[in-house]
Parts: sequence; C-alpha cells; structure tokens
Amino acid sequence: MHIYDISLTISEQLPVWPGDPPIRLQRLQKMEEGDSCNVTHLNMGAHVGTHVDAPFHFLGGDSATVESLPLNLLTGRVYVAQFPDDVSQIDAAILQAANIPPRTRRLLFKTRNSAYWENQTPEFMTDFVALTPDGAEFLIHRGIRLVGVDYLSVAPFADGTPTHQALLQAGVIILEGLNLSQVTPGRYSLYCLPLKIDGADGAPARAILIGV
Amino acid sequence: MHIYDISLTISEQLPVWPGDPPIRLQRLQKMEEGDSCNVTHLNMGAHVGTHVDAPFHFLGGDSATVESLPLNLLTGRVYVAQFPDDVSQIDAAILQAANIPPRTRRLLFKTRNSAYWENQTPEFMTDFVALTPDGAEFLIHRGIRLVGVDYLSVAPFADGTPTHQALLQAGVIILEGLNLSQVTPGRYSLYCLPLKIDGADGAPARAILIGV
Repeated sequence: MHIYDISLTISEQLPVWPGDPPIRLQRLQKMEEGDSCNVTHLNMGAHVGTHVDAPFHFLGGDSATVESLPLNLLTGRVYVAQFPDDVSQIDAAILQAANIPPRTRRLLFKTRNSAYWENQTPEFMTDFVALTPDGAEFLIHRGIRLVGVDYLSVAPFADGTPTHQALLQAGVIILEGLNLSQVTPGRYSLYCLPLKIDGADGAPARAILIGV
Repeated sequence: MHIYDISLTISEQLPVWPGDPPIRLQRLQKMEEGDSCNVTHLNMGAHVGTHVDAPFHFLGGDSATVESLPLNLLTGRVYVAQFPDDVSQIDAAILQAANIPPRTRRLLFKTRNSAYWENQTPEFMTDFVALTPDGAEFLIHRGIRLVGVDYLSVAPFADGTPTHQALLQAGVIILEGLNLSQVTPGRYSLYCLPLKIDGADGAPARAILIGV
C-alpha cells in the first residue's frame, strides 16, 4: 500500500500569494546555544502551501469557518484527472470531455502547474491553470463535494471571486496547493487533514493519497 | 464508519508551553472592511495544540526534522489504552499491567489529562500525567514506533529531556496534545498528518481515529 504525499513543503522559499506576508520559520530555542531543546516558531498565512479554503474565505458573514469542515468530505475516495500541458483553463467543455467517473464526489486536477512544484519554481506564477466559473457550475451540478488543484488558487489569477463564491456557496470544499507531479491519474483514497483553527477562513493541511 | 477527531482546536485561548509566545490568529484581510476575501495570519509555535515532535527537537545536530517523518508510521493501526484518574505517571510497572495487545506499534494514552480539554481548562497545567524514562524504555523494548499523549508533553513537566531523548533516539514518533475524551479504549486506524515544515523540530497536526 503506497502513500503518496501530495503536500508542498512549507519553507521560507515557498511562493505565497502576491501581497501576503512571506513565510517566516524562526528557531526561538537552539540547543547549540545551550537551550534544552530546539523550538521553531511559525509566522505565515492560513492559505500558504497546501491548504483548504472555508466558506468564510469568500462568503464572509456567518458562513462556515475551517474548523467545522466535515472530515467525511475531507477523507474518502477521490479521482485524479489529468489535463495535458496545453490546457490553460479548466472550463465546462474541458470537464465534459474529461471522462470523470460517475458518482465521483472528490476530484483533483493534475495540470502543468504541478511542474512548478517539481521544479521548485521560486516565483509566484500568475498564469497558473485554474477553474473557470462555468467549470465550477459544472462540478456543482455533477455533485462534486471537494475539488483540489495544483496551484495556490482554484480560480484564475485575474478574478478569484466568481469561482470561489460558486464553489463555497454550494458547500464544495476547496483544496489548493497540491503537488501531483508524482501521481498518475485514477482512483485513490484521499486523507486531507487541515489544521483545526478556530474561526479561520482557511488552514494549511497535509494531504496524502493511498492507492486503492 | 465513524471518524473521531482527536485534535485540539487552535485558538488564542489554547494554553501553550510556559515561556512560549502565545498563539496569535490575526485577520489581515476583512470583507467587512471592503477586502475581496477574508485572510487569516497565523503566528504560533511549532509545538502548539496537537503536534508531533521530530528527533531534532531534543537531539539536535543532524537528527531528523519533521518533514521527513515516515507517513507509514504516522498512519495505520493504533491501540488506545486508558488509565484511571488516580494514575499520575505512566511508568514501566503501569505499562506492564496495561494489557497492551501483542504487535502493537502505535499506542495512545488516554488519561485524566483529556478532561482538561473537555473542560476547556484555560491554564497550562503542570501536573499532567506523563511517561517516565523507564516507561519510555519499556515501550521501546516492546517495539512501539509511535506514542501519543493527551497533554502538551509526553514527558513529566519537571524534566522533559530523558523521556524525549530516549524515545526520539529510538526513532519513536511522539504525538502530543490529543483530546481523547470522546474515545473509548481499543483498536482504531490512526491518521496523524503534521504540516510538512522544512527543517523543523515539530509541527502542528490534525489527527483522527477511524473505527476498525
């Protein structure tokens, strides 16, 4: 039984969303300076690296925050769909042709984005492959309950609001920042476990796939 | 198939190790102030709430850091042992009498500590139930590869070094800060997924149990 780690490594070199503060990992206690143990301190956004978005991220008000996302959606059977490198956006037409198996409830998209992680591209790339608003509607009507993408946003860089709002309003969990470079398309079991952060709009997560 | 969430909720009210900076969750972008989305920023130690310790925490030098902990130890069959409220430390004699099933590789201790989480005790409690150094040796000789406890350290408050060093030197993964108040003793499948933080001595984790 092979475990695929589809999570990004959190480091100060990991690109973050433009305008967000950079990731800071600071060692506050150091054995080499006489402390009894080493202790690292974390200073980073809730949406760094591999992470989930909660409804509160783009809906606000009294919408659900990340600690309440249902674990029985975050874990379970998943389908990894792969798109060729010339696909620059995932819209309804592309999805219609993608042969997503019936009864799929969790869906991850492997695109050319994964090569950014494989190559450790240090810059934030604005031309990442993303889901269009009509692609989001297609998924909602197909009964998808969790969608995962291999760059830092599910939505196109130019305008993130419509895709995010459509998915979150429909109760679809959004999983972003996956590295799918080592995974072939097909069926797996997903375990996506975000930190349980009180009242937050999102949370960093560790996500793994297990072959079925 | 029931999923038990044995993770603590990370909030500014969660007690942290004495001397560590408090947890800060700050919303940097606010829809109610005109931002297009809500974005929370995290400022906290790597050993807050439910978390794992890597060898580098107490061994230093070139010992293993948290991103390299093996996922096939962090996930898999686990046994939850329960100790009565009058047990104030877990030593070799207590463990000898605990009827731990043969071939157990992952072991969680449910003690009176879990009531601190159930009751949302806001203070850091120094009298938590912990594993003594001879208890650690007992587990190592029994072939335990992951041990989990229901307060913020596996080791007694007065001196954390011997228990941590024994376990980490033997390659035992330490999982701390579990809330086992809703779990009955017995066998489960554990999925403990710590954040994959580059070069860190530990990492916050989400941990769940699934009935087997």
